[in-house]
Amino acid sequence: MARVVVDVMPKPEILDPQGKAVLGALPRLGFDLVTDVRQGKRFELQVDGEITDEVLAEIEKVAETLLSNPVIEDFEVHVEDRSVAEVAHEAGR
Amino acid sequence: MARVVVDVMPKPEILDPQGKAVLGALPRLGFDLVTDVRQGKRFELQVDGEITDEVLAEIEKVAETLLSNPVIEDFEVHVEDRSVAEVAHEAGR
Repeated sequence: MARVVVDVMPKPEILDPQGKAVLGALPRLGFDLVTDVRQGKRFELQVDGEITDEVLAEIEKVAETLLSNPVIEDFEVHVEDRSVAEVAHEAGR
Repeated sequence: MARVVVDVMPKPEILDPQGKAVLGALPRLGFDLVTDVRQGKRFELQVDGEITDEVLAEIEKVAETLLSNPVIEDFEVHVEDRSVAEVAHEAGR
């Protein structure tokens, strides 16, 4: 089984109140190295079989019509070997 | 300026109603290649200067305490050259 990731982020010119809330909380918690935060969404999609150009074209269409609002959000589609869960597991978390 | 990305996903054993809603909508929209969807969050953090081990250690701490709930979510920290906005721009979107 293959995994395709769609990342969706608010466009740079769009306000991002969630990101601003995180940024505001950081110094209160003693963290002072981060200068900006933007918050978006990550979708992990499972596909049976191989990732062909046809599969990627369909997922681009899914990202454009269902997973993002192209007026206010940018998206990116990429194939990823490991899920966040697998990476976290390997890191012993 | 450097960019560090924190991906946060619901743990595999945790129900994910948002992901299930997307999965349910796909066949209704004529998409039939995706067999599972999980929805999580993506944070793009800006850092002034270089990404040192100290910076990454602080961001791991931020991810653990502020950006994720370790009881129900896994997270992953990684350095990324380009933002989703830059990738989308290069793709002509």
